[in-house]
Amino acid sequence: MIDKPYLLFLGDVADQLAAKTAQGVVDWRPDAALGQLRLVGCKADLGLPEMSIADAAAKGARTFLVGVANSGGVLPEHWITTIVEAIEAGMDVASGLHMRLADIPEIEAAAGAKGVRLFDVRHPTRSFATGKGTRRPGKRILAVGTDCSCGKMYTTLALEQEMRARGMKADFRATGQTGILITGEGVSIDAVVADFISGAVEWLCPANEPDHWDIVEGQGSLFHPSFAGVSLGLLHGSQPDYLVLCHEPTRTHMRGLPHQKLPGLALCLQRNLEAAQLTNPDVLALGVSINTSALGDAAARDYLQKIEDELQLPTVDAFRSGVVKLVDALA
Amino acid sequence: MIDKPYLLFLGDVADQLAAKTAQGVVDWRPDAALGQLRLVGCKADLGLPEMSIADAAAKGARTFLVGVANSGGVLPEHWITTIVEAIEAGMDVASGLHMRLADIPEIEAAAGAKGVRLFDVRHPTRSFATGKGTRRPGKRILAVGTDCSCGKMYTTLALEQEMRARGMKADFRATGQTGILITGEGVSIDAVVADFISGAVEWLCPANEPDHWDIVEGQGSLFHPSFAGVSLGLLHGSQPDYLVLCHEPTRTHMRGLPHQKLPGLALCLQRNLEAAQLTNPDVLALGVSINTSALGDAAARDYLQKIEDELQLPTVDAFRSGVVKLVDALA
Repeated sequence: MIDKPYLLFLGDVADQLAAKTAQGVVDWRPDAALGQLRLVGCKADLGLPEMSIADAAAKGARTFLVGVANSGGVLPEHWITTIVEAIEAGMDVASGLHMRLADIPEIEAAAGAKGVRLFDVRHPTRSFATGKGTRRPGKRILAVGTDCSCGKMYTTLALEQEMRARGMKADFRATGQTGILITGEGVSIDAVVADFISGAVEWLCPANEPDHWDIVEGQGSLFHPSFAGVSLGLLHGSQPDYLVLCHEPTRTHMRGLPHQKLPGLALCLQRNLEAAQLTNPDVLALGVSINTSALGDAAARDYLQKIEDELQLPTVDAFRSGVVKLVDALA
Repeated sequence: MIDKPYLLFLGDVADQLAAKTAQGVVDWRPDAALGQLRLVGCKADLGLPEMSIADAAAKGARTFLVGVANSGGVLPEHWITTIVEAIEAGMDVASGLHMRLADIPEIEAAAGAKGVRLFDVRHPTRSFATGKGTRRPGKRILAVGTDCSCGKMYTTLALEQEMRARGMKADFRATGQTGILITGEGVSIDAVVADFISGAVEWLCPANEPDHWDIVEGQGSLFHPSFAGVSLGLLHGSQPDYLVLCHEPTRTHMRGLPHQKLPGLALCLQRNLEAAQLTNPDVLALGVSINTSALGDAAARDYLQKIEDELQLPTVDAFRSGVVKLVDALA
């Protein structure tokens, strides 16, 4: 879908966190990260070679990636000149911002004149059939969570990496804009029309070879009152063979909703398995992935052990210690 | 939202079933049904006065309602002249067809020139906030189902009618195009962007007086692999005090999916209650509504008794015998 390699554009963002998407490309698709382009005052740094547009174009950059998050999802006006320059050098442009590239007249006009493509990955443009729920060949793993933003993308990317390292056929399937920009394809599933959630997921991870694994990035939580419909469509559309439950242990309430408590891990897993059984009666829990980034080493180790004892499932921290245990459990 | 009364346009449809929406207006909002306009060859008849456009306009018709379903949701070309004539007589036009009125150049131009409104109720144009799940005052009843199209709209309209007849403050809240055209307002919830399902429902049945009842039309089923995400967003967004379970007893598989079995009623109700508890821990089952239209009188009576014994809940057939038992159970 989105051609690689990328020239990663960081604009003049105020901190490293704002460059999370670009950092994801560097971490998970290093071959796609040709160089970085930063404007005066930029406080983020990916440690890549600084590259001008002309330079990057000469070195084969195919897509100019606006790899940053911005307050309100707005594209600052003073970035437009640089984006137009990239277009004029023949690059496609991809963005995960809420504001559409195609809605900015200078960008739209330049892209039309040069015949390059604009990817606004938050806004799916293709249409989907409704989901059918028919069993299809190939194996699938889906990450589910007690909440939003608790490590589903990181865990599924780590699973793909570990499985590929072992020679398994495994593909991460992106369902959110960061994942799509990292891998170059996927569906921003929460932006699909409600009737087509599970249908879009069926399209995203279709029938495949019996020994092929799709590792489907999850979204939201069955227990999040804002987004549970999306999470349920993901369960039904991906008809997973295995679920990995993701959790962030220091959170005191559901993300964005101070009045809403987090579910217990056992209950959350049980409800996800029950819902997944509708399209795959044989679904199993593979294990648990804890995001311990807010804990010290000892506390993290203790917490993982506690969960492993409680749920009797392999429990990992994908970031600190990888997902070896989860992939071992597949065998 | 959509002004009344309506002139109900039936075109030249081939049978009475194709005029289901217009018939719904006659059944549930008779005061809004000023007259009918039929083209030569029309096989449907609502039993209303035949009315020309000039006639209807003179009698105060505010909206020209395209009250029919058509194969593929397409508006036949030979209907356009009549629609344009209604616009020129000053009427708004409303349609539940998939094809948008606004996408037909003659209609769009006429509406622009005359300054009337076009309502394509399948295509929500307003935007919504994400759902919050915060408890709000007012009482709510939601219809849930074992499947799609098993009597949810009919049951909730009947509840509104019976509750109003008893002097209760009750409003049917439409979530599909037929309901919206009948009542003149609502949200086609399966056409909303996935992230905003529960948020749109919160907007549809907002905080209200403590003794006010919103009767929310359900959609789909938690057990339908195509649409369960929509159903879950409805459960969370409406934070119902009571659920009514709707069921059609002769169905052999989920609508549109020959491979997919129907859930048992007890399991289906239990899962709906569990999901609804996320935003209203006090949710209860009010009763069961069976669509017995495919059964004879004796078989229908026996079936209702069987379900009532099994589930120990008031069980009605909204069409044959009304919903008195359900409203009694509220007291």
